[in-house]
Amino acid sequence: MLPPDLPLVDHHCHSVLGGDLSAAAFARLLTESDRPPAPGTDYLDTQLGFAVRRHCAPLLDLEPHCPPEAYLERRRSLGAAEATRRLLRAAGLRTLLVDTGLVEVPGAGPLLSLPELASAASAEVHRVVRLETVAEEVAQGWVSARSYGDDCVRALTGAVQDAGTVAVKSVLAYRHGLDVEPDRPSEAAVAHAAGEWLAQLDQHGGPLRLTHPVLLRHLLWTAVDLGLPIQLHTGFGDPDLTLHRADPSLLTGFIRAVEPRGVPLVLLHGYPYHRQAAYLAAVYPHVYADVGLTLSHSGARAGAVLAEVLEVVPFGKVLFSTDAYGLPELYPVGAALFRHALAGLLDGWTADGSWSAADADRVAALIGGANARRLYALPGR
Amino acid sequence: MLPPDLPLVDHHCHSVLGGDLSAAAFARLLTESDRPPAPGTDYLDTQLGFAVRRHCAPLLDLEPHCPPEAYLERRRSLGAAEATRRLLRAAGLRTLLVDTGLVEVPGAGPLLSLPELASAASAEVHRVVRLETVAEEVAQGWVSARSYGDDCVRALTGAVQDAGTVAVKSVLAYRHGLDVEPDRPSEAAVAHAAGEWLAQLDQHGGPLRLTHPVLLRHLLWTAVDLGLPIQLHTGFGDPDLTLHRADPSLLTGFIRAVEPRGVPLVLLHGYPYHRQAAYLAAVYPHVYADVGLTLSHSGARAGAVLAEVLEVVPFGKVLFSTDAYGLPELYPVGAALFRHALAGLLDGWTADGSWSAADADRVAALIGGANARRLYALPGR
Amino acid sequence: MLPPDLPLVDHHCHSVLGGDLSAAAFARLLTESDRPPAPGTDYLDTQLGFAVRRHCAPLLDLEPHCPPEAYLERRRSLGAAEATRRLLRAAGLRTLLVDTGLVEVPGAGPLLSLPELASAASAEVHRVVRLETVAEEVAQGWVSARSYGDDCVRALTGAVQDAGTVAVKSVLAYRHGLDVEPDRPSEAAVAHAAGEWLAQLDQHGGPLRLTHPVLLRHLLWTAVDLGLPIQLHTGFGDPDLTLHRADPSLLTGFIRAVEPRGVPLVLLHGYPYHRQAAYLAAVYPHVYADVGLTLSHSGARAGAVLAEVLEVVPFGKVLFSTDAYGLPELYPVGAALFRHALAGLLDGWTADGSWSAADADRVAALIGGANARRLYALPGR
Repeated sequence: MLPPDLPLVDHHCHSVLGGDLSAAAFARLLTESDRPPAPGTDYLDTQLGFAVRRHCAPLLDLEPHCPPEAYLERRRSLGAAEATRRLLRAAGLRTLLVDTGLVEVPGAGPLLSLPELASAASAEVHRVVRLETVAEEVAQGWVSARSYGDDCVRALTGAVQDAGTVAVKSVLAYRHGLDVEPDRPSEAAVAHAAGEWLAQLDQHGGPLRLTHPVLLRHLLWTAVDLGLPIQLHTGFGDPDLTLHRADPSLLTGFIRAVEPRGVPLVLLHGYPYHRQAAYLAAVYPHVYADVGLTLSHSGARAGAVLAEVLEVVPFGKVLFSTDAYGLPELYPVGAALFRHALAGLLDGWTADGSWSAADADRVAALIGGANARRLYALPGR
Repeated sequence: MLPPDLPLVDHHCHSVLGGDLSAAAFARLLTESDRPPAPGTDYLDTQLGFAVRRHCAPLLDLEPHCPPEAYLERRRSLGAAEATRRLLRAAGLRTLLVDTGLVEVPGAGPLLSLPELASAASAEVHRVVRLETVAEEVAQGWVSARSYGDDCVRALTGAVQDAGTVAVKSVLAYRHGLDVEPDRPSEAAVAHAAGEWLAQLDQHGGPLRLTHPVLLRHLLWTAVDLGLPIQLHTGFGDPDLTLHRADPSLLTGFIRAVEPRGVPLVLLHGYPYHRQAAYLAAVYPHVYADVGLTLSHSGARAGAVLAEVLEVVPFGKVLFSTDAYGLPELYPVGAALFRHALAGLLDGWTADGSWSAADADRVAALIGGANARRLYALPGR
Repeated sequence: MLPPDLPLVDHHCHSVLGGDLSAAAFARLLTESDRPPAPGTDYLDTQLGFAVRRHCAPLLDLEPHCPPEAYLERRRSLGAAEATRRLLRAAGLRTLLVDTGLVEVPGAGPLLSLPELASAASAEVHRVVRLETVAEEVAQGWVSARSYGDDCVRALTGAVQDAGTVAVKSVLAYRHGLDVEPDRPSEAAVAHAAGEWLAQLDQHGGPLRLTHPVLLRHLLWTAVDLGLPIQLHTGFGDPDLTLHRADPSLLTGFIRAVEPRGVPLVLLHGYPYHRQAAYLAAVYPHVYADVGLTLSHSGARAGAVLAEVLEVVPFGKVLFSTDAYGLPELYPVGAALFRHALAGLLDGWTADGSWSAADADRVAALIGGANARRLYALPGR
């Protein structure tokens, strides 16, 4: 087991709901799907659902694996604030890097503000700016196609100057796929693309959703100029994305184009292409790999999946996260699965002589937090 | 170990040869290849070959792993009927969903009829209609390009009205690859494609083999109208297919296009893209994943491969099968590997507290049969 | 554990440096990257780095996992010749098939000649001719576009007539990607491509690097005519390659085109597409799969990765190698990881009854050397 006081840095997460949860919202927040379950099936019947019942029930004074109904009833009787506080603190996270691109769970309510989250979790909180969210906010004002590219640059430059911003994040995988041209688009191409997109918005109304690949690339290259680490969603996620177009290997051209600039690229999640992400982190100095969502969703299999990540990745290049979103339970579950998974691997490798105990301790500290502190220039040890 | 009386539903299989087997036919039925073995190699030297020798020899009163020659001699001395009966019954299958698209093993003889198979296995048998087989039968009659599309609709509509038909199956992966346009082709496109294909048939003669992507899509959309679950071959198989074009993620567009219709899509096999199949089953309510061929062919590794399937799939969405074809041995081997593999995983996950014993029992019943009973609306519990 | 006297054939490796090593060169030879490590990270902090410290330190009379500085100091005090001799002999390799396409480690010195390597390792050495190296040597002389294709044929024909040449090797994956047209290019296409490439060379000067896909295909088809087994790099490697374009499944068209010729194609490495390589070896008689680089780089995970290869591959189709290059340590580490990994799997499979002990011994002998002896027509048992 990892030392329970190993100070974890969760380098990629979201805020959580602060109020009571319906059974339906609870189940929905346990799946990457945004659809109702198939007839006769239940989103709690997953590795993640079982892991939540195992790890969270005791935090609310219940037996592990108690029925979901009993769990939710106890949660309500404790009060959402107390339950949230217990759950978040049990995760043992010292530092959270929060993607602020999502501010609510549709149909279930707003997420805690960053100060509220910091207080509930008793953790230091930093901010990750989601590129596409900023660009969509720009498009909500009066904007001309000609100036849109520059407007985005200005808005992003402003957004990352907010205190506590340590990285930016791209959801290119959801909006288009990672199979984009690698190079920076020309100003003319950006203006032309903005014209196409804004005209489409005028015609269709509806919610803003930036999907134009040229504009998405413009955002990435603007981020490169800003110099902060860029987190990129790769691999599985909600059904907006097409899985094989989220293979991080498709980013190779972009990775090469960015390399001379030295700006770190952090490949989030990656599953089932996590070995590909680990390879990219192994051969490109500015590429890093994450294990967040992947471990939470694989539950009892977290150790097996983490082991695959740890085949070719240099241990200074891989980062713990929970990718928690909406449901406070995802924080302690993500942290517990990571602690158990890594401890199990390290115990096995030291027991059979493959690793020394000193190396195992050192690598645990790197993945659990030290790599993130170095990469994002976070304060503290 | 799973309760030996857990009533398994084999939701994807084929019939078997009823007669004696030559050593060559025996070996050939243990591989997905249709080629002779390489010089100096033997198709019995595989995980599947070893699993057959382990699990089937005792059923014929021999020691596990006895030499293949001794096994075949004993099989002949028992008589094919008795050997077949013993092998099929040992599988402990209550219900078989049989793909009737194959009726013989070329060079080795005809397969048992469905009633013969039901009797030998002492199982309830249902029928799965192979789309391409029906369309090829239509093309064997007098047919015009203009009417071919409608003729296929009529023939398929008739075929699924046969008593006991519970699903249809597509071998798009073999005939073209899963990388097709997702949408229903227009009537004009179907007529044009039929013209191209039928002209080619006239020129070349030879066995009918429908490979035109537009006609293959027409069959799929006809199946969507029929409303029965559609089984789709994905992942590895015989060398007709090109592996990376059988990645089920390539079906994402088709999956999305079918979703509003609610017709279940069952992704067969999937290996080595079984994690991709599991992901699709996790996020689309109408998508299901199968573990059949994959477990049989991985033998001693069946537990490891099954564990990968069970990372992100909801447990109400995954189905046992053997994909047995030709060789009666493939039934008991597929069933035994599944029982051992699942039991091993569940024992481990309950022993370390990751799962409750009650959940483990429930999930075993779901995957072993209850999911299939619900999905295909089979009678019985 | 495999019998330590199991005579291993390393069917794919390179020569090694004979002199002292700086700490920087040591670390650089442990990674597939050709870049400096990221700030704050170390290429020794990998599974391979830990495996080297575990397995090699005792060979130089040190404790396993001693600090790298102590290891390098001991190495220098022993003298490079003695250290190299100890390391190579500890690998227990009877036969080496050496890719002679690389003759130095840039910045670190020349590799041992084949006789020097044979003497240090006390092994029989055979030669593998790298296709692209020969073609680049041809281009260094006076050459016309019109005759370049024939010049390459002549040079390759000569090169493989050298005593001890048993195979050729293609690095198509590095130079273009495996996604090439499968068929033999016409003479006119080769002449045209040679014109393009040679013109580019004249303009740019610089080191010769053959990347024209038509010329690369011409080399492959020339090799088919020569009839020796063709080793093809697939899967991960240094960052010259784009990972998803090194998926061996992309070779399927070429594999089919070569099949009537019967020339063996050996898919090297493959990771993380090693299951794809194993599948191709399972269904095409002339295709073989290798486990070299993959096992060395996954260290403590070598058993898990090897197990994935051994799911569908026929055991007569898979081959041990170290892919050692430059660093003598990579020989004993590759051999030890393979011996441990295979022994661990076989012990487990025999212990639980999945395999018989006799089969396990037989398969170990096949993979460790007998398959290579048969495939490359090597002398000896």
